[in-house]
Amino acid sequence: MSVVDAGAIAAKVVDVLRHRAVPVGISNRHVHLSQDDFARLFPGQNLGVSKPLAQPGHFAASQTVSLRGPKGVINNVRILGPIRTYTQVEVSATQARELGIKPPVRMSGDLEGSAGIEIISEHGAITLEQGVIIAKRHIHMNTFDALLFGVEDCQSVNVLVGEAPRTVLFKDVVIRVDPQLVLEMHLDTDEANAAGLKGANDVGEIVFQE
Amino acid sequence: MSVVDAGAIAAKVVDVLRHRAVPVGISNRHVHLSQDDFARLFPGQNLGVSKPLAQPGHFAASQTVSLRGPKGVINNVRILGPIRTYTQVEVSATQARELGIKPPVRMSGDLEGSAGIEIISEHGAITLEQGVIIAKRHIHMNTFDALLFGVEDCQSVNVLVGEAPRTVLFKDVVIRVDPQLVLEMHLDTDEANAAGLKGANDVGEIVFQE
Repeated sequence: MSVVDAGAIAAKVVDVLRHRAVPVGISNRHVHLSQDDFARLFPGQNLGVSKPLAQPGHFAASQTVSLRGPKGVINNVRILGPIRTYTQVEVSATQARELGIKPPVRMSGDLEGSAGIEIISEHGAITLEQGVIIAKRHIHMNTFDALLFGVEDCQSVNVLVGEAPRTVLFKDVVIRVDPQLVLEMHLDTDEANAAGLKGANDVGEIVFQE
Repeated sequence: MSVVDAGAIAAKVVDVLRHRAVPVGISNRHVHLSQDDFARLFPGQNLGVSKPLAQPGHFAASQTVSLRGPKGVINNVRILGPIRTYTQVEVSATQARELGIKPPVRMSGDLEGSAGIEIISEHGAITLEQGVIIAKRHIHMNTFDALLFGVEDCQSVNVLVGEAPRTVLFKDVVIRVDPQLVLEMHLDTDEANAAGLKGANDVGEIVFQE
């Protein structure tokens, strides 16, 4: 009779899951809108769905806006749905320079003292005193993923991304645990370019100090 | 009488030098021109010096050109001097996308099969079949620096750059040893943005596996 060491098998399974690939989503500049701001920019309209995103219920909307800063304009900026309780604009450092603004590197929703911008549609315009950030890199995961990875909400981890000649170990990657979200690392276009990512089937690996 | 342990002091000095800060230079898109190509673009002119660069004898020239690709134009592109034996254009992945070209990530001078582009001045234009690259990140150092760091020409190292919340460990950083050059790491604008660099007094540290 063979003996099964259940503990050893479990340890191996956990080890494999702990080192599994984390899908990478590359965020180009985009806008989240509150219901009030959406209604000002698109009176009488509903937010249309153009393309579903990886996160359940999230989507690229059919409507787009322009961003106008002191030094430049970026057209064709996608609104991401659903509607939020607050309006937030996310750009890369490259795009911030084009616009002539200096947004801080922040997590979503942390907008106190962030940069301002004008958001323009074909029907109207709104001016934000604050609301523009460069997104702090992060990984969304659900509670079960967090248990398997052995990490907690708001913890920072190191993630190895890309292939030679542009492999990067991103430090300061914030874990965001949410039961509603699936495993996905978010990088902006500057970060994706620095790691030579292709924009399709990119993955990272959380590197634990072991 | 106190005893001086010269070996221990030397070891400490070497350790300090091995971990000293490496100045980071951020390269925006630029062009190196051969004498023939310069003469076609600026007939009868000499390459003027606008600003000396960190490397001895290198300079931003007073003349600029435009780059035209299938999808876009980038104006006001600086020529870097002195004149080279070959023409080479360096852009970031962000800028390559604007131009609509797909240059490979390469070291300077490794242009076989690289991307093409049109270079335009107020006096003329030339079309390169190849010559456009995204620069592979690298560190210039002289022979003495290489000895102190314990590295060799063409070796790849890991370099820690930036501060929270955007610290990055760049892997695949190529060492370039040249007796004429001073210690300087070169990153492009995408890489600098990914690491949250300010563009002034930025430094990195070579991380050795010890």
